[in-house]
Amino acid sequence: MAEQEGVLARLRRGHEERVLDLLRRHGALSRGELGRRSGLSRTTMHDIVSGLMANGAVLASAPERVARGRGRPAESLSLNPAAGQAIGIDFAHRRLHVAIVNVAHEIVGSASEGHAADLPWQRRVEIADRLIGELSEGEVRLGALKAIGVGVVGPVGSPGEESAASRQLDAVPTVLRKRFGVPVLMDNNTRLAALAESIWGAAAGCQDVLYLRLSHGVGGGLVLGGSLHRGAHGVSGEFGHITVDPAGRPCRCGSRGCLETIASVKGVLDAHREAGGRARSLRSLVAALEAGDADVRDLLARVGGHVGLVLAAVCNTVGPDLVVLGGEVAEVGGALTEPVEHALRAHAMPMIRRRLRVRQARLGEIGGALGGIALVLHESPLLAGYPAAPDPDEGLRS
Amino acid sequence: MAEQEGVLARLRRGHEERVLDLLRRHGALSRGELGRRSGLSRTTMHDIVSGLMANGAVLASAPERVARGRGRPAESLSLNPAAGQAIGIDFAHRRLHVAIVNVAHEIVGSASEGHAADLPWQRRVEIADRLIGELSEGEVRLGALKAIGVGVVGPVGSPGEESAASRQLDAVPTVLRKRFGVPVLMDNNTRLAALAESIWGAAAGCQDVLYLRLSHGVGGGLVLGGSLHRGAHGVSGEFGHITVDPAGRPCRCGSRGCLETIASVKGVLDAHREAGGRARSLRSLVAALEAGDADVRDLLARVGGHVGLVLAAVCNTVGPDLVVLGGEVAEVGGALTEPVEHALRAHAMPMIRRRLRVRQARLGEIGGALGGIALVLHESPLLAGYPAAPDPDEGLRS
Repeated sequence: MAEQEGVLARLRRGHEERVLDLLRRHGALSRGELGRRSGLSRTTMHDIVSGLMANGAVLASAPERVARGRGRPAESLSLNPAAGQAIGIDFAHRRLHVAIVNVAHEIVGSASEGHAADLPWQRRVEIADRLIGELSEGEVRLGALKAIGVGVVGPVGSPGEESAASRQLDAVPTVLRKRFGVPVLMDNNTRLAALAESIWGAAAGCQDVLYLRLSHGVGGGLVLGGSLHRGAHGVSGEFGHITVDPAGRPCRCGSRGCLETIASVKGVLDAHREAGGRARSLRSLVAALEAGDADVRDLLARVGGHVGLVLAAVCNTVGPDLVVLGGEVAEVGGALTEPVEHALRAHAMPMIRRRLRVRQARLGEIGGALGGIALVLHESPLLAGYPAAPDPDEGLRS
Repeated sequence: MAEQEGVLARLRRGHEERVLDLLRRHGALSRGELGRRSGLSRTTMHDIVSGLMANGAVLASAPERVARGRGRPAESLSLNPAAGQAIGIDFAHRRLHVAIVNVAHEIVGSASEGHAADLPWQRRVEIADRLIGELSEGEVRLGALKAIGVGVVGPVGSPGEESAASRQLDAVPTVLRKRFGVPVLMDNNTRLAALAESIWGAAAGCQDVLYLRLSHGVGGGLVLGGSLHRGAHGVSGEFGHITVDPAGRPCRCGSRGCLETIASVKGVLDAHREAGGRARSLRSLVAALEAGDADVRDLLARVGGHVGLVLAAVCNTVGPDLVVLGGEVAEVGGALTEPVEHALRAHAMPMIRRRLRVRQARLGEIGGALGGIALVLHESPLLAGYPAAPDPDEGLRS
């Protein structure tokens, strides 16, 4: 049943997006016009529109008073400008991001604020609350959307699990629910950034996307067939913990020589320092590169080669049509990304190599919060109780 | 639309399997009983049963003549014992396999025959035809199933593509269609074996399966969310071409040090010979192992370590709940598979490591042919034209 629910949720999401998109582009439309333009059957249209009206996203205007011959006058449907917004929050390690999307699924605004790494959840939620209030000018209307999407650091399993408990993750939904009075959907923030890039960012419109983020940690996400891939036990897209050198540096995951020990901010700076380099931050490393430091260029080429090798393994595994690179280390520029592409194309299967595209991420640090919104809009079981409407002919045949 | 068709096809397949399973287990049932036991809505049940009756899989008996109070007498539905079988053919490199499954999706029989590697397609199809005739005792009834599922060696893209043309793959559907008069569905035979293991084999009932085959070639397949994962351009599961050693032996894919150069039959024997070993076949290598040859044991441990490292990378990427190992090299036994499991668990993320199960493949060399059948039964667009039935209330409201 879990599989079928997922399938139905994706199907319904596609239908909802089609209806919302038509209303956004054309303004008010009658049900008949919506049906013709969307290609949806009358039953499906009825079900989708009922759902969108029930959560306040769509309004039905009073029927036009002009006589239109026989039959009922046409009811007109439009987006509800006073309807709720969707809110996403990314609780990153030392920084908190919020984003708001309106009922037409357009980005309304976003904001960020830094904080100490050990700030308690209650205090973080207070910051989020304040940023949301400022962005929405005090008019947060969550009622219609019925959920907040939240990104957090690290793997997110089921509530109560050991790995979540150790980070007090179980407290997050509780505290947020208490403050906003709506359910909370939660996932790993890097995976959420992958989903957001596939909707609003560098991979908009792509169905099969590999997202890799090279930052203080190294992680990623896979969008397969248009949906976030989660894996059997909620662990997937952990590209940072693919082993590059079994004899390499110890990694926080308990293994050795993971990509993260090589291609994270710390990994790059460690290698630089071990080779006698003097830069102590990524910024000063980039300054050295721009001043023509050949050692820095060679180091970044080696790091890029390792990243490309891992990406090639992932591409041979899942066959994406687009690779998106994000995070501070990728933002260093061509000195890193060109060796990445070179190694990727050298080690991927010929059929993949020829067609694969590589792009820089576009959403920056707000990606995780936007991904939280995507979770609410596209993947919420609350919004996807299809088939919610009663079977239309149930009462007619018995 | 392609995504939605896939979603709908999977949904319909689940419904069809539920109805066929109920009829297989309970014999004849009325529509009402089927509805109650399946939990499907009246509309959906009507649509699914109509489809199964149209392709001959299900028969409606004459209504019982016993008076049952008011209303129509109950029509009884049952599997059609004279209905068509599903046929799968695996055109492996030097050997051809056929399998037949009945209308209840039970395996009826299978057969194999060796041939020269360069045998023309026309001649291979003649062998397949003869084997099918023998298995079905001359009573091949393909009409009801309307397609044959076929596995072939190597990547399968769209018809007319360069890589397919070079192997004359485009001829296969043409020759088969000419002989059997039905459409032909085709995919890579190793990916099909992965699908078959997830339905009839070691991974029966699992939704997220990683299948790795170590044979003359090294390949595999991913079943994600219960469906064969294909990748954006039809290339995925190419675990044999993940780079293990960028400075290693040249591989037929154009790269170097791919897993296939290390863990295929030839890769293992090459390494054995280079180290001064005398075995010239996998069989004699196993004999040496059983006679206590420590060099052979060490070699297999090294090979297993590389296999485990690649599997860990794939597991960190997609997070399967089961790994299935198949092929002659995996059949060597614990001297290979124990080091595989050891390295896999050492390099996979902790949350994956704790829950992952590893099993030997169960379907052996017939897996590819069975996977061809799975393609027809579960993934055929011909059998999944959902929603095929007209909108039931279309005529009632206008």
